[in-house]
Amino acid sequence: MIKLPDSVTICEVGPRDGLQNEKATLNVEQKVELIDRSAQAGAKTIEIGSFVHPKAIPQMADTDEVAHMIKRMEGVEYRALVMNVRGLERAEAAGIKKVKLTVSASRSHSLANLKRTPEEMVRSFGECAEYAAAKGLVLTGAISTSFGCPFEGKVPLEQVISVISCFLEIGVTELSLSDTTGMANPVQIYEYIMMVRKQFPDITWNLHFHNTRGMGLANVMAGMMAGIERYDACFAGIGGCPYAPGATGNIATEDVIHMCHEMGIETGYDLDLVISLGRSVRELIGHDTGSFILKAGKCSDIVQEQKANQ
Amino acid sequence: MIKLPDSVTICEVGPRDGLQNEKATLNVEQKVELIDRSAQAGAKTIEIGSFVHPKAIPQMADTDEVAHMIKRMEGVEYRALVMNVRGLERAEAAGIKKVKLTVSASRSHSLANLKRTPEEMVRSFGECAEYAAAKGLVLTGAISTSFGCPFEGKVPLEQVISVISCFLEIGVTELSLSDTTGMANPVQIYEYIMMVRKQFPDITWNLHFHNTRGMGLANVMAGMMAGIERYDACFAGIGGCPYAPGATGNIATEDVIHMCHEMGIETGYDLDLVISLGRSVRELIGHDTGSFILKAGKCSDIVQEQKANQ
Repeated sequence: MIKLPDSVTICEVGPRDGLQNEKATLNVEQKVELIDRSAQAGAKTIEIGSFVHPKAIPQMADTDEVAHMIKRMEGVEYRALVMNVRGLERAEAAGIKKVKLTVSASRSHSLANLKRTPEEMVRSFGECAEYAAAKGLVLTGAISTSFGCPFEGKVPLEQVISVISCFLEIGVTELSLSDTTGMANPVQIYEYIMMVRKQFPDITWNLHFHNTRGMGLANVMAGMMAGIERYDACFAGIGGCPYAPGATGNIATEDVIHMCHEMGIETGYDLDLVISLGRSVRELIGHDTGSFILKAGKCSDIVQEQKANQ
Repeated sequence: MIKLPDSVTICEVGPRDGLQNEKATLNVEQKVELIDRSAQAGAKTIEIGSFVHPKAIPQMADTDEVAHMIKRMEGVEYRALVMNVRGLERAEAAGIKKVKLTVSASRSHSLANLKRTPEEMVRSFGECAEYAAAKGLVLTGAISTSFGCPFEGKVPLEQVISVISCFLEIGVTELSLSDTTGMANPVQIYEYIMMVRKQFPDITWNLHFHNTRGMGLANVMAGMMAGIERYDACFAGIGGCPYAPGATGNIATEDVIHMCHEMGIETGYDLDLVISLGRSVRELIGHDTGSFILKAGKCSDIVQEQKANQ
């Protein structure tokens, strides 16, 4: 038999990674409603936005307001992305206790975008770590292009390990490995994860997949076989891929949950509420998305329809 | 490590399962060109159409002509679907040596559509087996709704095994299990395949997946982990799902090949030729399709583009 976890945690990243890559800009009330409905549907971690310079990502300029207006549900972790101490200050002022720092695993990617190596980037987060420790905030790290990079192709495992080590040096023990451009395949996922889990047994791992080349759920399977129990996903599968216009973005929350439930893996979500939320998201952004379940329905839906027609 | 086959055979079923579910009707010359280009791209098995009553499936009425006009390439198996001896006669007259007989594993589905149980259907193929033996044709079987059925939900393994046994009784030893409505999940695939391989070690297995709920490539992974080396796929991922309008149909040939090549699994295909073929198919049918690689390109494409831009 395939050995898989009994339950997994699906982190909703739609309010940040999904919406920041959409042309349609939602207002504060709309964002708050989506976040609150996600929590009601069963999300235990929601990435509500980012505290970065509003000129860099205008869609996220209102994250402070969003953070103030959401209904904080017991047991739900509200997380935001930051890039520096200024972002941490905003997070703290908005009552966000968990923040995510992102670097690219790819040297070329990091040098081209930020003129620093990935390792230099992580070390520059040292002052964030000090600030977080002083203020009681929890830092997590995300390593984008951990598997493939548009500049370098396949990113060597050694490079990813080097960046992980830097995060450990500044005290970050919860890390997400991201297949930002949908270039990873299941064999690579399994191999990389087995190696990093062995080398860094004390890190809490999260995986972040895009479905750009159709391998999103196959990669989730590979991750689960390698023992990972935390996955990012995005309502309605919105977001797209900046390197391939028209291509699919993040794996859709409803698709991952549906697959897990079909396989008997618990997620804590009410799938019907997630689907209803996905439909609202699709309506708000005004175009078709990468979600399968929004188009096809759950397996159990078509069975009930056929029975009703008999 | 995940144990996977070194090489797999991807059977091109687009000319039959893809086109018969499309509104656009292609003419004989167009179909012949697609089949010939598929063979040139590396297909070793192509399902070129079906010899069934033209009123039942009008899009396949010209399969006789198609069979006569294609360039027969050495080493390529040209296969067609038939339902009875009349179909076999047409196949033989058209020089098609391999034919596929299909039944539904689901009792309700079979009774509703054909007023016979799956087992009765297979036994009715007995005269086809005699005809095939006399004329030197090779019979293969396909069992649709082997995993899930719109009437019954999950199809019990015992039911699938009962239908397999009937096929064996009439001497068919090459069988395809089809997830016709995209309801199967990777755990189910792995469990069913491990069981039927154990119980029927002499059967040559093929798997046929739809990507209706996004699990298509995850199911291919599960099939490969269970030791299966033959998969159907459909150029451009055309075809759709009759039970879910707008949903994705067969897994796309280019998506499966791309995943395999990325994982170091040989397919014998030239992926660039397959992608070019997929683009032509998409143009001919005149609408977007379920293919990922046609939208996003291969992993190696975006790397080259970025290098060229540097």
